Amino acid sequence: MNTQSYLMGLIGQGVTPSLTPPMQEQEGAAQGLRFVYRPIDLDTLKLPPTDVGRLLSSGVELGFNAFNITHPCKQLVLDALDAIDPAAQRLGACNTVLNDAGRLVGYNTDRSGFASALARELPDANLDDVVLLGAGGAGSAVADALLSAGVTRLSVLDPEPDRAQALVEQLRANAPVRTAPQLRSGSPEQAHSWLPNATGVVNASPIGMFTHPGTPCDPALLRPEHWVADIVYRPARTELIETASALGCAVMPGQAMAVGQAADTFELVTGRTPDRSRMQKHLESLIAAEQLAGQLKEHA
Amino acid sequence: MNTQSYLMGLIGQGVTPSLTPPMQEQEGAAQGLRFVYRPIDLDTLKLPPTDVGRLLSSGVELGFNAFNITHPCKQLVLDALDAIDPAAQRLGACNTVLNDAGRLVGYNTDRSGFASALARELPDANLDDVVLLGAGGAGSAVADALLSAGVTRLSVLDPEPDRAQALVEQLRANAPVRTAPQLRSGSPEQAHSWLPNATGVVNASPIGMFTHPGTPCDPALLRPEHWVADIVYRPARTELIETASALGCAVMPGQAMAVGQAADTFELVTGRTPDRSRMQKHLESLIAAEQLAGQLKEHA
Repeated sequence: MNTQSYLMGLIGQGVTPSLTPPMQEQEGAAQGLRFVYRPIDLDTLKLPPTDVGRLLSSGVELGFNAFNITHPCKQLVLDALDAIDPAAQRLGACNTVLNDAGRLVGYNTDRSGFASALARELPDANLDDVVLLGAGGAGSAVADALLSAGVTRLSVLDPEPDRAQALVEQLRANAPVRTAPQLRSGSPEQAHSWLPNATGVVNASPIGMFTHPGTPCDPALLRPEHWVADIVYRPARTELIETASALGCAVMPGQAMAVGQAADTFELVTGRTPDRSRMQKHLESLIAAEQLAGQLKEHA
Repeated sequence: MNTQSYLMGLIGQGVTPSLTPPMQEQEGAAQGLRFVYRPIDLDTLKLPPTDVGRLLSSGVELGFNAFNITHPCKQLVLDALDAIDPAAQRLGACNTVLNDAGRLVGYNTDRSGFASALARELPDANLDDVVLLGAGGAGSAVADALLSAGVTRLSVLDPEPDRAQALVEQLRANAPVRTAPQLRSGSPEQAHSWLPNATGVVNASPIGMFTHPGTPCDPALLRPEHWVADIVYRPARTELIETASALGCAVMPGQAMAVGQAADTFELVTGRTPDRSRMQKHLESLIAAEQLAGQLKEHA
């Protein structure tokens, strides 16, 4: 029995039902660690997002090793940090904070989590021409990961084309000169022109979630040659993933990024290598249990 | 694997080396619980004792289930509580706080821990006439436990006789009329008159600790008929316990109360029955490891 103990928290709005805490606790327990991970829900606590810095300071006092940070605090948290990892700095967003002997150090495991998931799940993906749907915080992290993975042409589509354009400008400003990726932006309608030549499609928008049903682009545009990745993990398989899968596309459902993010965080915090397959199975069983509980509730 | 997780903290000055956190974590782990217990050291944090209420509020926000409270916050913490158990109220001191859905409820497991240790370790102790050495916070909790256990005559001795007298008055005010114990107070010199007729002796003073070597009364006064209890648990066997043991007295070394306190806290927090023998073995091995580390350091 390892007697090292770890204490983590997740700060954000509506995080009470998040599956990240049980997923991390289960991996910790499976490794024989003493590991507790608490959701810290700003909604339940009736606290403004600007309290994130104060909560981090309290966490340092009370012995937390690390925090995950989510909506709407990923940008706000930057002001509370003592140091920031280059990728998080570049993205202007941080979802993981380590307590390094009282110094708060920020990372972005959304980015690294998507990158590690893609390398693991779709190692043969053709990265020549990728269409990214969604230019919000998650889209920004995914776009950065895609460029780091070697995507040559990236087309960013968002219902707010200005937001897509701003992301493209940010990516261009930060891209290493030697790679010089082709970058362009537009609204989701642009998919009709750009998808036919694309090699891969990634959804980083909320479309496909239970609360935002549908697909982020016209599913009739998908071809079997496309690889298709989603970051939405509830439901386990979105309509986009189901459609692509039926067509014969190589797919990466949303759990892959959720697991990648959690696994990268686990490794940063504990210094131990997580078992990603085991974490994926944990997450799948958590999602299945949650869906079953939801069905039972509906039928009660 | 039980997936319930528990998060506790210990607030006080100089608590970093306390053995309570590892002892509680080990019992939690042995029961298959996810259990993390953090020392929150006011000295290290450079915080005044009056911050105890603020730390408790932070703990509620961050998902702590409970806290132990120690020197010098056991009285100060009362102002921060929403409710208080009758024994803690009577003692004017609280060493355990439960977070009951945001309400802070105070208990005193120093008192219950001594009581449960005495019942377990010295079930046949003659309670007719007990001499208690030390009238501070611990002495107060032990005195209350002794009276509840049925002690008929209690003599409280303290180098500050006024403090001993104040404790006796407090005990008298709170004692049920039907039991009407005989209570008296004095300075440690009084032991020469009172020990010869006593049935038992309890040390609740710091004398015997590594930092306060010696015995709290003249050891020549001990007789084989005395039972002797100590609440000092570092060293594992104080000079008082060693002397009494050599004479053939029934003894209860300080680990018994430390375990009783920790076990009662564990039960309050988790609602599960701790294995007291296992906790005692844990504590003994922690003390042995600590002494070994100390010896290695001395010889380095």
